[in-house]
Amino acid sequence: MPGAGTTAVGACARLCDMSRIVRVGAAQLGPIERHHSREEVVARLVSLLQAAADDGCRLVVYPELALTTFFPRWFVDDIATADHWYETHMPNEATQPLFDEAQRLGIGFCLGYALLEHDPVGDAIRRWNVQTLVERDGSIVGTFKKVHIPGHEGHEPDRPFQHLERYYFEPSPEGFHVWDAFGGRVGMMICNDRRWPESYREMGMQGVEMILCGYNTPLHYAPDPSQDPLQGFHNALVMQSGAYQNGTFVIGVAKGGTEEGVPSLAESSIIAPSGEILASATTDGDELITADCDLDWCRQYKNTLFDMDRYRRPEVYTRLSAPPRNAP
Amino acid sequence: MPGAGTTAVGACARLCDMSRIVRVGAAQLGPIERHHSREEVVARLVSLLQAAADDGCRLVVYPELALTTFFPRWFVDDIATADHWYETHMPNEATQPLFDEAQRLGIGFCLGYALLEHDPVGDAIRRWNVQTLVERDGSIVGTFKKVHIPGHEGHEPDRPFQHLERYYFEPSPEGFHVWDAFGGRVGMMICNDRRWPESYREMGMQGVEMILCGYNTPLHYAPDPSQDPLQGFHNALVMQSGAYQNGTFVIGVAKGGTEEGVPSLAESSIIAPSGEILASATTDGDELITADCDLDWCRQYKNTLFDMDRYRRPEVYTRLSAPPRNAP
Repeated sequence: MPGAGTTAVGACARLCDMSRIVRVGAAQLGPIERHHSREEVVARLVSLLQAAADDGCRLVVYPELALTTFFPRWFVDDIATADHWYETHMPNEATQPLFDEAQRLGIGFCLGYALLEHDPVGDAIRRWNVQTLVERDGSIVGTFKKVHIPGHEGHEPDRPFQHLERYYFEPSPEGFHVWDAFGGRVGMMICNDRRWPESYREMGMQGVEMILCGYNTPLHYAPDPSQDPLQGFHNALVMQSGAYQNGTFVIGVAKGGTEEGVPSLAESSIIAPSGEILASATTDGDELITADCDLDWCRQYKNTLFDMDRYRRPEVYTRLSAPPRNAP
Repeated sequence: MPGAGTTAVGACARLCDMSRIVRVGAAQLGPIERHHSREEVVARLVSLLQAAADDGCRLVVYPELALTTFFPRWFVDDIATADHWYETHMPNEATQPLFDEAQRLGIGFCLGYALLEHDPVGDAIRRWNVQTLVERDGSIVGTFKKVHIPGHEGHEPDRPFQHLERYYFEPSPEGFHVWDAFGGRVGMMICNDRRWPESYREMGMQGVEMILCGYNTPLHYAPDPSQDPLQGFHNALVMQSGAYQNGTFVIGVAKGGTEEGVPSLAESSIIAPSGEILASATTDGDELITADCDLDWCRQYKNTLFDMDRYRRPEVYTRLSAPPRNAP
């Protein structure tokens, strides 16, 4: 039983404050080869989860396509032969151990994977690049579908490897949303979404305080190799500016290292609303980095310099939501 | 007369290529005190112009409010007593020597100043924070009015100094435009505009290749002093990300140093479409920095990763142009 009233109030105030400080783990993964089974991968995810729980994390963020290799680097004539890369349910038999262990430990997580849905309309098959957010009690908060699908639609055999995301995934028709979770307002984006200021802003205008972003970023960009040595710089630049300009934490989590011969950027990081990097991965393999994210820090930007209601000028932003020039 | 046809073609091709490489000077200014006359200031501008011409520049960019002190740091009860800080015509008697010398040297420039206009409708007085762009032949390309007016509307005597831009200036009703000039597509923004990704994007969607941005940025930000030590970081972050995400050069030019007791950020810089800083000021006084800006570099971003017609998703950007929540 608490002692004097003032002490109890003080304890409560501290607890209330504490509830806005979310210790987050970014669970970077090294390569996943084609011959690795889901079960092998999930064992790695569980191992990182346990390390995060030991470190006091409330939330662990995994990369984009965290259950498989980055299969859009391979072309197949018949897309149905690639269906085994997609999940049809979440959780499923392979991922249930992750869900069970997370619930046992009372830790939430965000998991990227490919999702195959059977749309009852016209019996169509829909293929998505998604992240699912799971609360500490095991309940599913939401599933986000990638909005900005990069790469190309058809086989380009002259490339050293393909980037066929536009063949394997539809762009989300749903846009960006924000959920009440982990004591704050949480949004998600995936990989290329982080290069577009619109992604952060759509969530920023919904009061987002923490954006969770998995990515797979090959170091070689075939359309303009002059960008190759700048991949790490660009990765940090877009996430730091997006964080600052919207007063939000950004958790960027890579699948890094050389996967099936393709070197990919690691450099996972946890970024503050000030744009400062709080934690950064130092390897390109499985690695957990953590930081205490005080969500109240967001207010120092949202309520001052970036008070959007006061300072934005939507009446002169006439082009941002207009259809592209080549639209029908 | 040219020799063989192939040589002539070769020379022409080189000239054509050359015409897309614009050598630009960022003419940073140190403090301007209240007692400095326009004539004294213009002599400094001319001196920097001549240095730029000697260095082969085609274009010189001056800071925001380059003819006066940053007078929004002072409150006056009767705003009409501040009218002497504004220009009513451009060029005028005080600035004519700058226009004359620029035309003589065949060098263009971009000049920031306060503009007072008499609106015939209702005989109203309009006060703007503007930049005027002048071509190498002395013709005026256009005048840009600042869109995002920061600071506060009324006197806040508890601040160590005021930031009364919202008292002294109306926000532009015109938004962001791009002009064909200097062999490319040139846009302008002023100071706080550079913190808003919408500024770059509105111009990016008009194909901008070079954004000219003057600024006055006090190192102390009264509403949240935790941002004070980050001013230089934030300044670079927003301009570098805006350049990269829109495939454009950004020329950021400060009035730096301690002006009437208020220390302001210097760190003028010329930024490439890659987001890399090509040149950076090393003092906080009058200083010219220069760089060759190859406007064709922009295509490496505009035509690949940031091909907006191909990759943007305006159909799901439902909040960007919507009125603010507290709109009538």
